[in-house]
Amino acid sequence: MRNADATRERIVAAATAEFAEHGIAGARVDRIAAAAAANKAQLYSYFGGKDALFDTIFDRHVAANVDGVPWTADDLPGYAVRLYDAYLADPVLIRLVTWARLERTPAGDLFARDPGHDEGKLRQIAEGQAAGLLVDDLSPEDLWALLISLAGTWAQASVTWTATPDEPDADHARRRRALAATTRRSFCREPAPGA
Amino acid sequence: MRNADATRERIVAAATAEFAEHGIAGARVDRIAAAAAANKAQLYSYFGGKDALFDTIFDRHVAANVDGVPWTADDLPGYAVRLYDAYLADPVLIRLVTWARLERTPAGDLFARDPGHDEGKLRQIAEGQAAGLLVDDLSPEDLWALLISLAGTWAQASVTWTATPDEPDADHARRRRALAATTRRSFCREPAPGA
Repeated sequence: MRNADATRERIVAAATAEFAEHGIAGARVDRIAAAAAANKAQLYSYFGGKDALFDTIFDRHVAANVDGVPWTADDLPGYAVRLYDAYLADPVLIRLVTWARLERTPAGDLFARDPGHDEGKLRQIAEGQAAGLLVDDLSPEDLWALLISLAGTWAQASVTWTATPDEPDADHARRRRALAATTRRSFCREPAPGA
Repeated sequence: MRNADATRERIVAAATAEFAEHGIAGARVDRIAAAAAANKAQLYSYFGGKDALFDTIFDRHVAANVDGVPWTADDLPGYAVRLYDAYLADPVLIRLVTWARLERTPAGDLFARDPGHDEGKLRQIAEGQAAGLLVDDLSPEDLWALLISLAGTWAQASVTWTATPDEPDADHARRRRALAATTRRSFCREPAPGA
């Protein structure tokens, strides 16, 4: 790895920890540069500034989640359980997303700067509804929002209980079963007999 | 109202806005005192300090929610819809709760400083399960966590869409119906025929 690339990656790693811990306004460029053994001039020259650096890190974690958690319109319970595990494995993602919500986008679509971001998923939900596999009394947007909310029940912004990897396996197994059962009851229809 | 009480309430109002906007670390005692036409000495003497002031405001909003949203173990869909409306009517509550989660209690029970806080509700959920009115393949704790998550789908910390009062009535009506239907399908059992 070239020297500049290595410095960039050290800045990203340090900034990820800083933003996850303190949010956008609370993050300190001085601390990020010091933790990355870089200087502020390098940070500004590579990333443009604190907000743009946040965007870079936010986009990486969201993209890693999209890539790492296969979307399966024909298996929403499985998708929800994979999200549970992904939130457990990347404890930074939901914190970054929630800071962005609280500090930047207090209303409406959180991903408004990426129009059409869920178009493919919403179309597949509508197809599943038309095929009788998903309940059809929810709009695809509402079904998606409810599904994501269910999957995040024990995530890092939970207003009840945030799961952590150090909990007993039995707790995780119990929550995965609860989430799969609830997702199935919420959204999935049994295929018609003989279908 | 005595003069001191009026000052106290002005500090609470100013601090509520400041904490909701900036969180705990980001809140500035100087700004709160200035907005309340008070001085920092008064603020410290009435409330002890920034963290204790946050606790006061947090506890008030949580208590107002508990008091204002009747808990009905025999009507979880109705309870979820009332929470939807309560989050819309008090846009500060979920922001305060979420700042507390991100800044203070990153793991486990968010209300750990109030042991037994959900005991009554959990007992009633267990009774509903024993009576065959609620699904019995979820622990009462998991059912409660999933219910609260569903009800907060469009709340101020939503990772998809945050509802606001200025949206068309039809959007709110559609979400209330979606939430009621999903809550019912998730947790409620039809009474046995002839029961």
